[in-house]
Amino acid sequence: MDKARDYCGVVGVFNHPDAARLSYFALHALQHRGQESAGIVTSVYDEAKRRRVMPVHKDFGLVLDVFDDKSLFEDTLVGDSAIGHTRYSTSGSSTNPANVQPFVTHFQEGHLALAHNGNLSNARALREALTARGTLYTSSSDSELILHLAAQSEESGVVPRIIDALHQCEGAFSLVILTDETLIAVRDPNGFRPLALGRLPAAPGREHPGWIVASETCAFDIVGAEYVRDIEPGEILVIDRPGVERVGEGKTPEAVAGFGGVCMPRRHGVSQCVFEYVYFSRPDSLVFGAMVDKVRRRLGKRLAHDAPVPLVKKGEGKRPLVMAVPDSSNTAAIGYVSESNKMGRRCKLDIGLIRNHYVGRTFIAPGQSSREQKVRTKFNTVRGVLKDRIVVMVDDSVVRGTTARQLVKMVREAGAKEVHFRVSSPPVANPCFYGMDFPSREELAVNAHGSVEEIAEWLGVDSLGYLTVDGMMDAVETAHESRDRYCHACFSGEYPVPVETGVVKEENDW
Amino acid sequence: MDKARDYCGVVGVFNHPDAARLSYFALHALQHRGQESAGIVTSVYDEAKRRRVMPVHKDFGLVLDVFDDKSLFEDTLVGDSAIGHTRYSTSGSSTNPANVQPFVTHFQEGHLALAHNGNLSNARALREALTARGTLYTSSSDSELILHLAAQSEESGVVPRIIDALHQCEGAFSLVILTDETLIAVRDPNGFRPLALGRLPAAPGREHPGWIVASETCAFDIVGAEYVRDIEPGEILVIDRPGVERVGEGKTPEAVAGFGGVCMPRRHGVSQCVFEYVYFSRPDSLVFGAMVDKVRRRLGKRLAHDAPVPLVKKGEGKRPLVMAVPDSSNTAAIGYVSESNKMGRRCKLDIGLIRNHYVGRTFIAPGQSSREQKVRTKFNTVRGVLKDRIVVMVDDSVVRGTTARQLVKMVREAGAKEVHFRVSSPPVANPCFYGMDFPSREELAVNAHGSVEEIAEWLGVDSLGYLTVDGMMDAVETAHESRDRYCHACFSGEYPVPVETGVVKEENDW
Amino acid sequence: MDKARDYCGVVGVFNHPDAARLSYFALHALQHRGQESAGIVTSVYDEAKRRRVMPVHKDFGLVLDVFDDKSLFEDTLVGDSAIGHTRYSTSGSSTNPANVQPFVTHFQEGHLALAHNGNLSNARALREALTARGTLYTSSSDSELILHLAAQSEESGVVPRIIDALHQCEGAFSLVILTDETLIAVRDPNGFRPLALGRLPAAPGREHPGWIVASETCAFDIVGAEYVRDIEPGEILVIDRPGVERVGEGKTPEAVAGFGGVCMPRRHGVSQCVFEYVYFSRPDSLVFGAMVDKVRRRLGKRLAHDAPVPLVKKGEGKRPLVMAVPDSSNTAAIGYVSESNKMGRRCKLDIGLIRNHYVGRTFIAPGQSSREQKVRTKFNTVRGVLKDRIVVMVDDSVVRGTTARQLVKMVREAGAKEVHFRVSSPPVANPCFYGMDFPSREELAVNAHGSVEEIAEWLGVDSLGYLTVDGMMDAVETAHESRDRYCHACFSGEYPVPVETGVVKEENDW
Amino acid sequence: MDKARDYCGVVGVFNHPDAARLSYFALHALQHRGQESAGIVTSVYDEAKRRRVMPVHKDFGLVLDVFDDKSLFEDTLVGDSAIGHTRYSTSGSSTNPANVQPFVTHFQEGHLALAHNGNLSNARALREALTARGTLYTSSSDSELILHLAAQSEESGVVPRIIDALHQCEGAFSLVILTDETLIAVRDPNGFRPLALGRLPAAPGREHPGWIVASETCAFDIVGAEYVRDIEPGEILVIDRPGVERVGEGKTPEAVAGFGGVCMPRRHGVSQCVFEYVYFSRPDSLVFGAMVDKVRRRLGKRLAHDAPVPLVKKGEGKRPLVMAVPDSSNTAAIGYVSESNKMGRRCKLDIGLIRNHYVGRTFIAPGQSSREQKVRTKFNTVRGVLKDRIVVMVDDSVVRGTTARQLVKMVREAGAKEVHFRVSSPPVANPCFYGMDFPSREELAVNAHGSVEEIAEWLGVDSLGYLTVDGMMDAVETAHESRDRYCHACFSGEYPVPVETGVVKEENDW
Repeated sequence: MDKARDYCGVVGVFNHPDAARLSYFALHALQHRGQESAGIVTSVYDEAKRRRVMPVHKDFGLVLDVFDDKSLFEDTLVGDSAIGHTRYSTSGSSTNPANVQPFVTHFQEGHLALAHNGNLSNARALREALTARGTLYTSSSDSELILHLAAQSEESGVVPRIIDALHQCEGAFSLVILTDETLIAVRDPNGFRPLALGRLPAAPGREHPGWIVASETCAFDIVGAEYVRDIEPGEILVIDRPGVERVGEGKTPEAVAGFGGVCMPRRHGVSQCVFEYVYFSRPDSLVFGAMVDKVRRRLGKRLAHDAPVPLVKKGEGKRPLVMAVPDSSNTAAIGYVSESNKMGRRCKLDIGLIRNHYVGRTFIAPGQSSREQKVRTKFNTVRGVLKDRIVVMVDDSVVRGTTARQLVKMVREAGAKEVHFRVSSPPVANPCFYGMDFPSREELAVNAHGSVEEIAEWLGVDSLGYLTVDGMMDAVETAHESRDRYCHACFSGEYPVPVETGVVKEENDW
Repeated sequence: MDKARDYCGVVGVFNHPDAARLSYFALHALQHRGQESAGIVTSVYDEAKRRRVMPVHKDFGLVLDVFDDKSLFEDTLVGDSAIGHTRYSTSGSSTNPANVQPFVTHFQEGHLALAHNGNLSNARALREALTARGTLYTSSSDSELILHLAAQSEESGVVPRIIDALHQCEGAFSLVILTDETLIAVRDPNGFRPLALGRLPAAPGREHPGWIVASETCAFDIVGAEYVRDIEPGEILVIDRPGVERVGEGKTPEAVAGFGGVCMPRRHGVSQCVFEYVYFSRPDSLVFGAMVDKVRRRLGKRLAHDAPVPLVKKGEGKRPLVMAVPDSSNTAAIGYVSESNKMGRRCKLDIGLIRNHYVGRTFIAPGQSSREQKVRTKFNTVRGVLKDRIVVMVDDSVVRGTTARQLVKMVREAGAKEVHFRVSSPPVANPCFYGMDFPSREELAVNAHGSVEEIAEWLGVDSLGYLTVDGMMDAVETAHESRDRYCHACFSGEYPVPVETGVVKEENDW
Repeated sequence: MDKARDYCGVVGVFNHPDAARLSYFALHALQHRGQESAGIVTSVYDEAKRRRVMPVHKDFGLVLDVFDDKSLFEDTLVGDSAIGHTRYSTSGSSTNPANVQPFVTHFQEGHLALAHNGNLSNARALREALTARGTLYTSSSDSELILHLAAQSEESGVVPRIIDALHQCEGAFSLVILTDETLIAVRDPNGFRPLALGRLPAAPGREHPGWIVASETCAFDIVGAEYVRDIEPGEILVIDRPGVERVGEGKTPEAVAGFGGVCMPRRHGVSQCVFEYVYFSRPDSLVFGAMVDKVRRRLGKRLAHDAPVPLVKKGEGKRPLVMAVPDSSNTAAIGYVSESNKMGRRCKLDIGLIRNHYVGRTFIAPGQSSREQKVRTKFNTVRGVLKDRIVVMVDDSVVRGTTARQLVKMVREAGAKEVHFRVSSPPVANPCFYGMDFPSREELAVNAHGSVEEIAEWLGVDSLGYLTVDGMMDAVETAHESRDRYCHACFSGEYPVPVETGVVKEENDW
Repeated sequence: MDKARDYCGVVGVFNHPDAARLSYFALHALQHRGQESAGIVTSVYDEAKRRRVMPVHKDFGLVLDVFDDKSLFEDTLVGDSAIGHTRYSTSGSSTNPANVQPFVTHFQEGHLALAHNGNLSNARALREALTARGTLYTSSSDSELILHLAAQSEESGVVPRIIDALHQCEGAFSLVILTDETLIAVRDPNGFRPLALGRLPAAPGREHPGWIVASETCAFDIVGAEYVRDIEPGEILVIDRPGVERVGEGKTPEAVAGFGGVCMPRRHGVSQCVFEYVYFSRPDSLVFGAMVDKVRRRLGKRLAHDAPVPLVKKGEGKRPLVMAVPDSSNTAAIGYVSESNKMGRRCKLDIGLIRNHYVGRTFIAPGQSSREQKVRTKFNTVRGVLKDRIVVMVDDSVVRGTTARQLVKMVREAGAKEVHFRVSSPPVANPCFYGMDFPSREELAVNAHGSVEEIAEWLGVDSLGYLTVDGMMDAVETAHESRDRYCHACFSGEYPVPVETGVVKEENDW
């Protein structure tokens, strides 16, 4: 897809002497969820101050760059619990560090740090109520609202306050919260964003295992943690002691066990983000109970039926060449090709686009219109593969369509005889109010250029085929997760949670 | 003096198209008031968002380094009002940017940015009350309290809320506050810290002049502003419109005129910080109605009486050589020498210590005990001047005494026959609760080493002489400011404003 | 393969007003040939000095980082000819910039800048002769020798001197040389390293086209240049005037035409580096007259015969799963799978390893043995794909084998039932003296661990299969390039150019 | 003076385990001799390579910034001999590191590193001869010539070659040269630039002392070294073994003793640079056998006679106020005032200009004409001191005069009744060919504005007085150094060493 980049990645570690270091590796594994800034907070007892403190280090940049000083882990980020965050934001020109997460605050019950992936759909109402009570904001983030709600709660005790605060939130919030004594993992009742629990081997000399929560399970693999289960939609899991060996693995809210915690009521049913499967999550992650790459392969297979390869009979010419737009569409393309061949639509998988992996954030295009150059800086066509061939490009999604259009142009320049475009998801037609940063409705290809035929013409392709919403949901559905447990609002316009009317993205970006 | 480093410098500009740039030069002139971090906030109408916004840029480092990108002034920090801050803090290892000022926040009446020089003496009580109401803190600074008080005030309108908030504060606070429409300059009722008002020439094409407030008037000189008057102790001056040519120059609170504003009641009388004269302010500033260098010269003259030059009669040897510890004691030494000679105590001013001006913050002393090396990196003795002479070193103050001791050692190594030490202030013996960062009581030379004789022995000098508190106040007193309008608690222990019992410096440094 | 990283990428541009900018994009496309440092030199007439000068900018870092300041292209690197270089070196700890290319020098005929890809095999003899004549070296690079030879030549005129110098060199040298008036492209008589000539569209307002030479043709695509032909082995092409529309495209040395230039005699026949096909070049480049990805696919196909997929008959279990070690082995794996299925060896291509593309140079592994962590930081397994499967891993080459071994371990941990390892080249068994930076002979897997069986055991695989040298050469051979025109010394030990006895890599690294 | 910035500082250390660290501190003390770049080279035996190597670290920036990484001293710059360099250059826009010293090279006798302060007056002839022999240059510096001369010498052995090379050089060269076995200190036969020898206390566990050479003795103080003697004009001192306790202190070339070494013939007599006394050296240094601050005080005293204070008789008004332009004129002003009062010309020393010491290299003046702002950023006037006074400004020299003019303007704005300008040297009227970087002849105030009266008018002063060349030389002359042992060509135009006709500064700056 062409760059609906947003989201965040979160991680939390409990009861491990290397909490910050493990968070660092985990954040690195989650780097695809946000490349703009990174941060880690730990909780540690300060001998000199005779109380717990929360050292923090965060900055703009990639995880490996923000934490490129070894002494951070030795001198600053000590302690055996930690949370971390990696984030993409659209306000690139800003140099204000106030929005870089995790947020670290202090209130009457002690310290409170929070890292958030998602978007509150009732943020405006919450903000208005808080504002009327004299609340002062230091960031423009929804996430700060949750902290204020906890601080102003009439409950007493840090955990009851947080539970109270979360009950007032609507929308998408996969959270990790660090208090002086506990690590809290939260998934909103709809379960929009993923969040999983893992177990770390007990550190040398420790009796009990450590615990880790992260946006995706690929973060567990890098630190050698074992996947235990997902945080359930609506679950507030309070990890407050190491001595728990098994954590309830039941799939109902009632079955939260092991650690403390409660479940929030589900007002709108479960509605997990299907776009995590389509594009966002890493293929090697287990998300919403399924391996992402498997779902993606099924999307590709279904696409073979819904938008088949052009038919070229034996003897009538070379088989059409199917190529992925790397890297996010690789798996779908494999499924597409294998299913097509099974269906008797002869075709061949090949690599027609090479992605340059040295493209960092510092790209400048001195003295030239940069858009086209930027795509050329990132991709190159393989002429020998494409020349004189019927080419079928498989992409995971089309949002704005501008990158796709540029790639089609390059594929044609490389000599392709025909260019067909296949998308392993339906057209993105609606904004997301649950955490994904799509461009404005007007900029979406489907709105800017009209019907599928009109988009095809604008893209410059011989044919264009999408998955239908139904086709996509067929592919996503599994034995244990029925199709009605997903949100596909960006494709279908069916929003599972009512959104405040007229919300615009930047309204809180004071 | 050796290391009473703290304090901050603040600046505010109103009605000038180059508000941020003028703030930048002003902060540079105030750099001596804090070298750890610097920041500027502006207020500007954002056409896209159709409302005002407050862009900010702040970071650790010197002013010229933090703002070393020209485009900041062209693209980011636009707008015709601004405030700025430069700060020293003791928590050097911290990488948390949350404490870097100015603070920028948002609440129900709009934006609020604040830059603070000083320390609230009732911070604990305020914090407790705010905390009990569910306040969430993002920094450990007193300054944040003022913003919360305003946000939670029962007044309505941004200015009435700020006035309400300030009435609850005690202690030292010279503030500049930026709102969406106004620039507010505040000095606490005691007037501990300086704050002055200046007028900028009208910018090209503008009918009215611009306005500037700054910690010291040296900031006016660098931008070509004209000194108007001090902000009065207790005054809250609200600069809300450019079309005021003259601002009331009366010296009583009642006489605040021109712009809006009010005066806070004075519960404890005026008590301006005498240490601003002794060491902190730049000699070319007009502070508390007097030129700093003039006061410093008078301190030196008085010192000539209280702690005279050793008597060496004509024919009995070379005149004693008087030298300043550069640069802060230069003026006092000039006064000391001229008065001594008038008194018949023959002596001669000379330059016996050279200060290396390339010592930045990045000094490292690889592989060596760094304390002694650091002094040697900063100062060098002039052997030809000192050899075989009776040397009288004049320093502005002695706090911990460790640098002084090292310098004495170096002067002896350079061949001085005798070393006498003269201090143009009394011994620093008590902590400051109004904004100056002295070391702990135990570390002060006078507490660590005992009587004047004992300190002299520890310093390794042949004689040691201080000013008395009385002598100092004689020198400070002027026609228009009586001696009882100053705070000298760090010397005398007489605190003009009661301090919360048992306050320790780091208590809020969560 | 596991990291025989070395090599360099070179580029030259002639007659284009954006010479430096085009070089920048070209170097970015060549980034895979060296990630340690980057540099660009231009030639421009300096009005003030009334003669030509050669401004240069070079530093350690990736291309996009070294040139992250737009003003470099506007103020410094002006002029319409340029050369550039990107380089990998092994002496990572060094901070000496003297070895960063291009080298810029001055001698009696004017300026001379050079960028070099390769290694002189008679460097020691040349160095000894030069040294005896009183030559002073400022770098430890072979490349400097060429410049000294030109400066000390008895010919007169800059081009004759360069030609004279090059006739004395043996080994591998693909060079671009910038003089005050010309751009010279050179390939050694063996043609070890690639170098291609392209034509740029005439810049606006210019009558004639621009010219570009680069290590690989992928650099042409990014700047919109058209591939013209390879620089011939032994050719010294002197590009000295823009007004040449066609440049001789004959394939014999005699046919060099268009621009000036000569051909060096071929003492040892043509011997192009087969490792460029195996691993080094980008798949979208045309190298030695063939598209790299096509050759790689043929290598994979041949491997299917030489080291077939384990036979699993229909009904006897799931098809073996073939996976590439991404990204360099992707194409070979595609060829391997398609050929295997044709042969009746049922198998299935899938993605079992995900590569994390955010791994930059700043990786640190605080507090842990870093080798294993580094591999985990770069790759993650896809458990759902690998679990309970017979897995065939296809890698392009095995040098040291340590990364392969770590990956095998990870694949097993992911649940693979069997792990078979297939390598689309023979074992690397000998050092390269022509520019590739392999580890020492003792560290090569084949020497460290013995027979194929022993290596298999050490790697922890169920079977291990390589291509034979013959098989590899079958795959590489094309209609227009016979197999005896390649060097495969690293595999076969047959060195086409005699190497000075006892040369060790660091001998010149003074 | 207003910015005749150039020069360099050099240092060499022999037989001390902390050679690099001592060089670092010494360079910091020499920072005033050049702020653009800094570098250190050491010589150490490399166990792995089984021979000596010369690690180097150098970069643009201040000493403390270039060496801000402690590990440099622990991991890279090891070894017990070292040389270092700090340099100012005029080509500020250049990013080419090739000109940053020390130069490190290799030739047939081993390594050779060199740091140079000065300028060869026969550089053109040497360059032509070398060039004709096929020499290749990598920098545009004179210093490189010396290295080539040594490499191409017909002598054998590294020291004889260097001696041979130096005999061919004319002009100014104070050098430190590091070879694999020795440290060589050289001063040209005229002795234009200073260079002194010091002894370091024996390092712990070592039998013999260490040795240090440096441009000025202030570098000895910071590392605790003892001044031994100056390197004699023409002396080539070869420090090749630690076991020498005393080094010949005779003042004739014949008396060079202790270490090895020779003396070059003096073709033109000794002609030490008087400008070192006037402005360049630090006042706490012993240069050419005299303390700089003493000479400067004598210059001020003599100035009192040659250009006296305006006469204001008792009762006819306040005494004229004499102020230095800080910091370089402080000592001269002290001498001027004391002598004036002795002469009956009543006057008073005071501090009328404050210098801001936080002005680094990163100053930017966004959106404004920067020249005037830059002066204002660096200096501020003390209005209370200057108001209504007759002010006599004492400056050490006037070169271009632009800063002086700006300061005069500021002093007038501060209310001075009259402004008189006194310069403790004659007008700078001629270029220096021996290492000082004055602006072009046309830019010098004396050439640009004419007679003293015309300059006075241009400066905007009521009177202007210089020292005469005779007066200056009277003040400089001492018992042991007669006035004819100095060069004052920049004042008098009498060049002690013939200069190649028509040399322009940039001619070698290819």
